[in-house]
Amino acid sequence: MTTSTYTVTGMTCGHCVSSVKEEVGEVPGVTGVEVDLGSGRVEVSGSGTLDDAAIRAAIEEAGYQVA
Amino acid sequence: MTTSTYTVTGMTCGHCVSSVKEEVGEVPGVTGVEVDLGSGRVEVSGSGTLDDAAIRAAIEEAGYQVA
Repeated sequence: MTTSTYTVTGMTCGHCVSSVKEEVGEVPGVTGVEVDLGSGRVEVSGSGTLDDAAIRAAIEEAGYQVA
Repeated sequence: MTTSTYTVTGMTCGHCVSSVKEEVGEVPGVTGVEVDLGSGRVEVSGSGTLDDAAIRAAIEEAGYQVA
């Protein structure tokens, strides 16, 4: 399993967390997304190589910034 | 047209605004809901008498507090 961790800014509530989880979860190869609202830590896991650019794009698509 | 205004606390982002609009919009008689995120001001309009208790319950159901 591969894991990548990002720090995301702009998430303010549980709805924001859900949006990030949903968008990142749609990236091919992603099997899990854990988000900690307080710290902005987003941990993405997958079975193979994770597409870093696609994950960053998904976070931005959800409306947030990768620090 | 009848209009009632509430001050709601706990809304932090556009998703919160959407949740409040959706829940309050389902209250019978309500025809419009305007929300200002910055001030927490929620203005509810309807064609007849507005059910104050039902509107307050809807806001709380969405997960927020009426000040």
